[in-house]
Amino acid sequence: MKTKGLYGFCTFLLVLFFQGFQDCVQGRLLAASKPDRDAAAAYARWLVSQNTWGILNTLSRELEGAPFGNVVSFSDGIPDKGTGIPYFYLTTLDPTARNALKDRRSSLTISEYPLGTCGKADPESPVCAKITLTGSLVLLDANSSEVEFARTALFTKHPEMKGWPKSHNFQIFKLEIKDIFMINWFGGPKPLTVDQYLNYKMNKFAVSL
Amino acid sequence: MKTKGLYGFCTFLLVLFFQGFQDCVQGRLLAASKPDRDAAAAYARWLVSQNTWGILNTLSRELEGAPFGNVVSFSDGIPDKGTGIPYFYLTTLDPTARNALKDRRSSLTISEYPLGTCGKADPESPVCAKITLTGSLVLLDANSSEVEFARTALFTKHPEMKGWPKSHNFQIFKLEIKDIFMINWFGGPKPLTVDQYLNYKMNKFAVSL
Repeated sequence: MKTKGLYGFCTFLLVLFFQGFQDCVQGRLLAASKPDRDAAAAYARWLVSQNTWGILNTLSRELEGAPFGNVVSFSDGIPDKGTGIPYFYLTTLDPTARNALKDRRSSLTISEYPLGTCGKADPESPVCAKITLTGSLVLLDANSSEVEFARTALFTKHPEMKGWPKSHNFQIFKLEIKDIFMINWFGGPKPLTVDQYLNYKMNKFAVSL
Repeated sequence: MKTKGLYGFCTFLLVLFFQGFQDCVQGRLLAASKPDRDAAAAYARWLVSQNTWGILNTLSRELEGAPFGNVVSFSDGIPDKGTGIPYFYLTTLDPTARNALKDRRSSLTISEYPLGTCGKADPESPVCAKITLTGSLVLLDANSSEVEFARTALFTKHPEMKGWPKSHNFQIFKLEIKDIFMINWFGGPKPLTVDQYLNYKMNKFAVSL
């Protein structure tokens, strides 16, 4: 009887252990394999497709033209079908959308750190990748086919968005990328053109989750 | 003998469970209690003291004045002794320091999301706090007492920095805050002056870890 109780306790501990492990990975998407660090386009597309949030920068109208970063969610497509183009769901109740409608210059900055794949590296270390996509933040035509694609991309990765208040008049924006700054190892930014980035075929490294 | 083995296995499982739990929190500092959402100064100081990295935004010299975000590590003091003033360890090999030396206008943006205290809220949800400190990014005098304080603050939270290459000539910068934009619940940005933020006494909510 005592042994039986001990077996039960062991089972309970096993459940606790695996439950705990599961909780560890809930905060982020399960990552597709991290590309080789020298495959710059693959690495950049991986960072953008695996992350679900970043900092979107605009030029502040209210703060004398200062660069104004804001935490935003984004999506470049449904999981494992990323396009590399980040889409956003923004309201002019927030300064970022207001700024962009006045001056389109913008950048989106993403860190590898929240993906949990940097090991023990410091977030500023070049070993923990960072990417900044600079370009124009533009409002999509509400009746375009692109807006339909973008809405599906956003709502799939961010289901909560579907329920955000209609009265806030959220609209879909995209970043038209003109420059890519990525560091994913020692030796400075990786050479990477916008064409190389956009033309990279994601399925080269996609894995089914 | 069988029972003894089972006891041993149970002990092993218990060790695994607590080890696993410990690993879960390694990616971030153990958080002091999250302040009440209506205590704007306390909340803002908590976000800045608990986070160890964010996005530092400057005006790009190379990209036609675009707002340029970069992933950086920072520290506002040793743990639980934060000052609210973010210090950075930057090199002019990186565009952020070069930009700041040309035009000081800057902002630091931090999300509550990586702290793991947003529950199931989306990173863009107002329920998951975000803060943007806007001001001037200034280089500290290498012989000042403030630079000594800042170095200790940075190296305590980012021990890896001590070993970064001397040849890269890292220097300490700080953000002189002029405006605070924080959302930590529904209803738009919380009213919060720079004086209220800087004068807030951290030990009101500090807990020993």
